[in-house]
Order: sequence, then structure tokens, then C-alpha cells
Amino acid sequence: MSLTRSLLLGTLVSVASASFAYADMKPEDAIKFRKAGYNVMQWNMNKIKGMTIESPDSFDAKQVANAANAIAAVANMGMGALYIAGSEESIGDMKTRAKAEIFTDKEGVKEVAIKFNQAANELAKVAATGDKVAIAQAFKDAGASCKACHDKYRKD
Amino acid sequence: MSLTRSLLLGTLVSVASASFAYADMKPEDAIKFRKAGYNVMQWNMNKIKGMTIESPDSFDAKQVANAANAIAAVANMGMGALYIAGSEESIGDMKTRAKAEIFTDKEGVKEVAIKFNQAANELAKVAATGDKVAIAQAFKDAGASCKACHDKYRKD
Repeated sequence: MSLTRSLLLGTLVSVASASFAYADMKPEDAIKFRKAGYNVMQWNMNKIKGMTIESPDSFDAKQVANAANAIAAVANMGMGALYIAGSEESIGDMKTRAKAEIFTDKEGVKEVAIKFNQAANELAKVAATGDKVAIAQAFKDAGASCKACHDKYRKD
Repeated sequence: MSLTRSLLLGTLVSVASASFAYADMKPEDAIKFRKAGYNVMQWNMNKIKGMTIESPDSFDAKQVANAANAIAAVANMGMGALYIAGSEESIGDMKTRAKAEIFTDKEGVKEVAIKFNQAANELAKVAATGDKVAIAQAFKDAGASCKACHDKYRKD
């Protein structure tokens, strides 16, 4: 199995072999957990941007590596499985900005998911080197792959 | 620097060298980001429990390893820095269950944080081996270290 294929399986279709964890999941919990993943990535993206681009003098290799590891680990944890039936719309206070297309456009989602996973894993790999300039570039590439999904599948 | 000391710095006192990222942070965002970290850990703990204890026949080594990596990465991302002034109490819809003591009892927090970090990193290490029985034990140890903090520093 190729790395790409393996990442994709981790992201999108982990439902089958872990049905215990999803069969009884409430749609509002699915929204809660996927938002948690995005928020963890957002905070860590902010930190990396700050330490490499906005305030490069504050660069701390260990913190940047930890932040990148968190982003990659979340990217690899199989969030695609959280787009369950019933979680298409906000439920009370549990808001979702997911567009309907993320539940139906399997090929399109697969494409952005693969690119994002690759970019997140690359960012973690580059962050481990401590090379600030290379990290800034890998950060921008990862950010572009985030935006590609937001543009297609997230409401404003 | 010992591993323990290094983990602690990562968890608790990353404010100093990353001041850009926290100086302008709104207290409600600090609550949002730390809750996101706990929620990511909760989902992945649920998955590991399901695949090793509740439904061991559904064990999937790759998914368990990815779940454990997410827990460890969140444990290492420096969430202690999110307990900023102004984030002691819920702010509107952004609820926090943190007790006041987590903001004041630095020695007690340090103790539970070190134990939790060690348990989370150990869980990731054991999960990488694919040994289901050993993973179940490491999961229980990690869960106990979660509970130790909840009992002391989280409201019911």
C-alpha cells in the first residue's frame, strides 16, 4: 500500500474497522470532535507562523517541532470518520461550517485530504530539522492545503 | 536537561519564548484551544479503549498507533500556556470546567502534568509496537493520569 493510500485510509475511511467507536456516536459529538481537531491545528499553525514569519526572533525549534507534530498527528487521526450521517448541519449550540459537498463529493474530498496529509507530514518532517527558513516554506505549503479545503468545503 | 524537565517546559512554561502567540490571545480563545486539546485526546482515548478493551476484535494497529500519537502530540504541545489571565471562568457560551486551583497551585499542576506527559508518551511508544495487551495496560495508565488531574483541577 502506498503512503498516500495509507494516509487516505487513515483520514477518510476508518469507519469500517472501528465501527464500535462510531456506531453509537451522537452527531453533535462528531461535530465537537472534528472542530476540536481543526482548532488544535489552528492554534499550532498560529504558533508556527508567529515563530517563523511574524516574529522570527522568537523562533524556538522545540516548540515549533512540537506544534508541527500536533498538526501532523491530528491530520493522521482519521477525522474523515467524523463526517457521519446527521452531522451535516449545526445542532443547537454545536455549530458546523461544513458545506453539504463534503458529505457527497468523495473524489474531491479525497484529493484535498491527500494533499493536506502530505503537507502536514512534510511540515512535521521539516520542523524536526530546526531549519527556520525551510519550516516557513513548509508552513506556507501546509496553509495552502488547508485553504484549498476551506475554499471548497467550508462556509464563510 | 532531563526528559521530564523538557516535557514540563513544553507543557507549562512555553509562554516566555512565544510571547507573540499569547500576548494578544483573547481569554475565550485560550479556553477554546485548550478544550480542543482535551476533546482530541478524549476521542482518541475512546478509540483506543474501544479497540483494545471494549471490542478487542476490532483492533487495528495502525489506527491505535495514530490515536496514541495524537494524544502524545497534544500532551506535548504546551497547553499549560493556555491558562492565561482572564480565562479562569466561562465566558459566555465558552464554558470552562477548570477549577481556580489550576491557576494557582503551580507545584501540584506540575506534578500531574509531568505524570500525564510521561504516560501519554509511553502510550504512543507502546502503541507503535502493536502489542494489544501492552497497549491496553498503557491506556489504563494514561487514563489514570488524566483522572488524577480531573479529580484535582476540573469541576464536575
